[in-house]
Amino acid sequence: MTSQQDSDRTDAGPARHYDLLVLGTGSGNTIVDDRFDDWSVGIVERTEFGGTCLNRGCIPSKMFVVTADHACDAAQGPRFGVHTRYDGVDWPAVRDRVFDRIDPQARGGREYREGLVNVEVHAGTARFTGERRLVVETEHGEVQVSADQVVIAVGGRPVVPDIEGLEEAAAAGLVHTSDTIMRIDALPHRLGVIGGGYVGSEFANIFASLGTEVVQVDGQDLLLSTQDADVARRFTEISGERWDLRLGAELERVELTDGGLRLHLGEQGTAEVDLLLLAVGRRPNSDLLDLEGTGIEVDDAGRVVVDEQQRTTAEGVWALGDISTHHPLKHVANHEARIVQHNLLHPEDLQTVDHRFVPQAVFSVPQVAAVGLTEEQAREQGLDLAVFTQHYADVAHGWALEEDDSGHLVKVLADRATGRLVGAHLLGPQASVLVQPLIQAMSFDQPVRGLARGQYWIHPALSEVVENALIGLEAALDA
Amino acid sequence: MTSQQDSDRTDAGPARHYDLLVLGTGSGNTIVDDRFDDWSVGIVERTEFGGTCLNRGCIPSKMFVVTADHACDAAQGPRFGVHTRYDGVDWPAVRDRVFDRIDPQARGGREYREGLVNVEVHAGTARFTGERRLVVETEHGEVQVSADQVVIAVGGRPVVPDIEGLEEAAAAGLVHTSDTIMRIDALPHRLGVIGGGYVGSEFANIFASLGTEVVQVDGQDLLLSTQDADVARRFTEISGERWDLRLGAELERVELTDGGLRLHLGEQGTAEVDLLLLAVGRRPNSDLLDLEGTGIEVDDAGRVVVDEQQRTTAEGVWALGDISTHHPLKHVANHEARIVQHNLLHPEDLQTVDHRFVPQAVFSVPQVAAVGLTEEQAREQGLDLAVFTQHYADVAHGWALEEDDSGHLVKVLADRATGRLVGAHLLGPQASVLVQPLIQAMSFDQPVRGLARGQYWIHPALSEVVENALIGLEAALDA
Repeated sequence: MTSQQDSDRTDAGPARHYDLLVLGTGSGNTIVDDRFDDWSVGIVERTEFGGTCLNRGCIPSKMFVVTADHACDAAQGPRFGVHTRYDGVDWPAVRDRVFDRIDPQARGGREYREGLVNVEVHAGTARFTGERRLVVETEHGEVQVSADQVVIAVGGRPVVPDIEGLEEAAAAGLVHTSDTIMRIDALPHRLGVIGGGYVGSEFANIFASLGTEVVQVDGQDLLLSTQDADVARRFTEISGERWDLRLGAELERVELTDGGLRLHLGEQGTAEVDLLLLAVGRRPNSDLLDLEGTGIEVDDAGRVVVDEQQRTTAEGVWALGDISTHHPLKHVANHEARIVQHNLLHPEDLQTVDHRFVPQAVFSVPQVAAVGLTEEQAREQGLDLAVFTQHYADVAHGWALEEDDSGHLVKVLADRATGRLVGAHLLGPQASVLVQPLIQAMSFDQPVRGLARGQYWIHPALSEVVENALIGLEAALDA
Repeated sequence: MTSQQDSDRTDAGPARHYDLLVLGTGSGNTIVDDRFDDWSVGIVERTEFGGTCLNRGCIPSKMFVVTADHACDAAQGPRFGVHTRYDGVDWPAVRDRVFDRIDPQARGGREYREGLVNVEVHAGTARFTGERRLVVETEHGEVQVSADQVVIAVGGRPVVPDIEGLEEAAAAGLVHTSDTIMRIDALPHRLGVIGGGYVGSEFANIFASLGTEVVQVDGQDLLLSTQDADVARRFTEISGERWDLRLGAELERVELTDGGLRLHLGEQGTAEVDLLLLAVGRRPNSDLLDLEGTGIEVDDAGRVVVDEQQRTTAEGVWALGDISTHHPLKHVANHEARIVQHNLLHPEDLQTVDHRFVPQAVFSVPQVAAVGLTEEQAREQGLDLAVFTQHYADVAHGWALEEDDSGHLVKVLADRATGRLVGAHLLGPQASVLVQPLIQAMSFDQPVRGLARGQYWIHPALSEVVENALIGLEAALDA
């Protein structure tokens, strides 16, 4: 492929035509490797290189989670007979340690791209003006860009709800989303968290572990309400023992007070906090793209519609990641990016995405990990289910962890018709790692029968909780 | 099967004949389930029910490891910006917490067996007097026992070397093995650990984490010298930063001093300690059984020789676990016990043990886990190897764990001829759990190609270190 770059200037600013134009530098940025060296490539990024995951999502938040784990673990020492203590956190030191690692990565990503002869980077927000034609608003003015192939990978952003008093509170600098909460200057004394999903729950844990008084609010009666009900129920109980939960409650009004905020929560009363974190969901950035008239369809939730090859409804336009997926998770976006990459390079041999067994985790205390169907979903589908729940307390490593009353569990579901796992739901330490053999079994169509006994599980490693779950499930299948 | 019990008294004490006689109540005790309800069963145990693992091995030691982890983690907090501290341990509280859980399990195991109508328990040491005939020395005198089927599952014990001054030191109560060290009355100020294998290394970590000054001695130049050399090397370096290592050294003499011991270590000088832990290896208890003339062969290392069905060289006599295995590990003993159990119940359909992919772990800081061949073993076998090493530092969760200089790694080996994993060697946090997908792949003959990409790995879970190891290995296979 030859470069079709030109640089004629028009009234609307300079124009560029590329073989490939990538909008967004999260997973989209992984597409352009050395196999694209003879493609002319334009990249548009409106903020930092690296996308949500690197700059405002998974990676920095897990750095805070692990930090908070140290506080949480130290507070647990006396239960084990060990004189450990947690005496507070040097928040600015933690924040700077995290972002002194993150920010250079983002800068390095940009510099690397800018150094490639076949790549042009446009810092700005792109919107469509026609078929594979866009304008990028940069700080130096507008740039017209067009391309033979366009990849939309501009991700999503936190939803900011329309609530009375919120704008005033935000103007006072007291309202955050996951985009900004990790960069604040001091640990708040009291934090309101609006939202009981994974983002709200992870941050509630981080701040509670570090000593903040947390009030978490959600309209549902359970936190993590899309998880299997057994997991959501126990997770909610544990969280409720650790901080102030206001469930079945709406944030009706935010009131500025002397040095803080009063949250009006209807029947759940009021709560006084110093800062507010909004974690009520995320939405795709499709509304920033001016997609009307481009032939690129968007669904009711604002997701760009793609087929199994990640093609949008417009010729030569692809999409991946949070802008289009039903699984807004980094490991899914990376997979989709590899599919798009392959399909760009091999238009005669298109690959299809695999969204069959997408796992996800919540990095709180305890961790949650899941793959496949919840019990409720499986029953709705009318599957003839075998179900088994293994508690951490009943394996040797669970004894070591003093798990007696934890309620931590591995719940596994199999379809009696096929003898295969259809879901796995873990709540407890190391859940995000323990789940992997179950993902592997599902992905490679391994039968439940023989799965536990056909391999060794190190005694007394925590993995025995998964082994015993599978043994119990096999017995349930045979019952 | 009918009971052939009788109770005629002879000069040599009462005599009993059983359908099945089980010697030892570690994994051996798992054989007798309700499928044996119409068998008359004798069980002989010379100490507590539950064997080494429950009473003196894996389980209590891991309870101490997890306890020590709290101390170790709290000491690391400041590196993360968290003000955590470790100010000592209430050793008697820890010890009593551990054994107040362990000891009732052992007692409960005995009481359960003693309550079964078809089972007789003999508390004492058994030795053979003929073909499937033994005498048990109990505190009430000798009991003659015989059986149609005999299962030898009497395990092993720590080796106590013959060293000048050791007996005197032992008489002063200053010498321990893994059998006794966990039940001492106070945390020693200074501990000498003789042995650089997994037992010595786990206890060195426990005591060092809790604040004891540890001196660890081994004749080899590396700790864990049977592990893959890359793992052993890095493990040795890390241990050497945490306590006093004297490698390439023999304990030549032990000298009682005022209130302690002086260890004479040849070229490695001397060391002053308060207590000494001997961890120089374990030996099978076959020497206690008077096997001469029974037709039950024993190898040079004292292991009872068994075939792939766990049959000894004598008709009707089986063996399992540490008395016979080349893999003295609880998960192997349990597997062998299931094979013996099946083969006792189904003599017409004997099953074979599977010792192909036996994993093992060392629960120190860091953890070590391994399965399959070391690189050295694979090269000795002449395999055409692909090798890849992934460092924890280079995955997102490794950033969160501040792994930069840890040297923690996942090393994977594949045979180019088959495209299959032949070994995996992990050093770092959660290694004993992270290794499981690799065990699974090896056990179920899953090819390396496609293994990483054919399943999702949660981002940013620590399991990505295994994913990336497999991606690197696949590239190495294709290189």
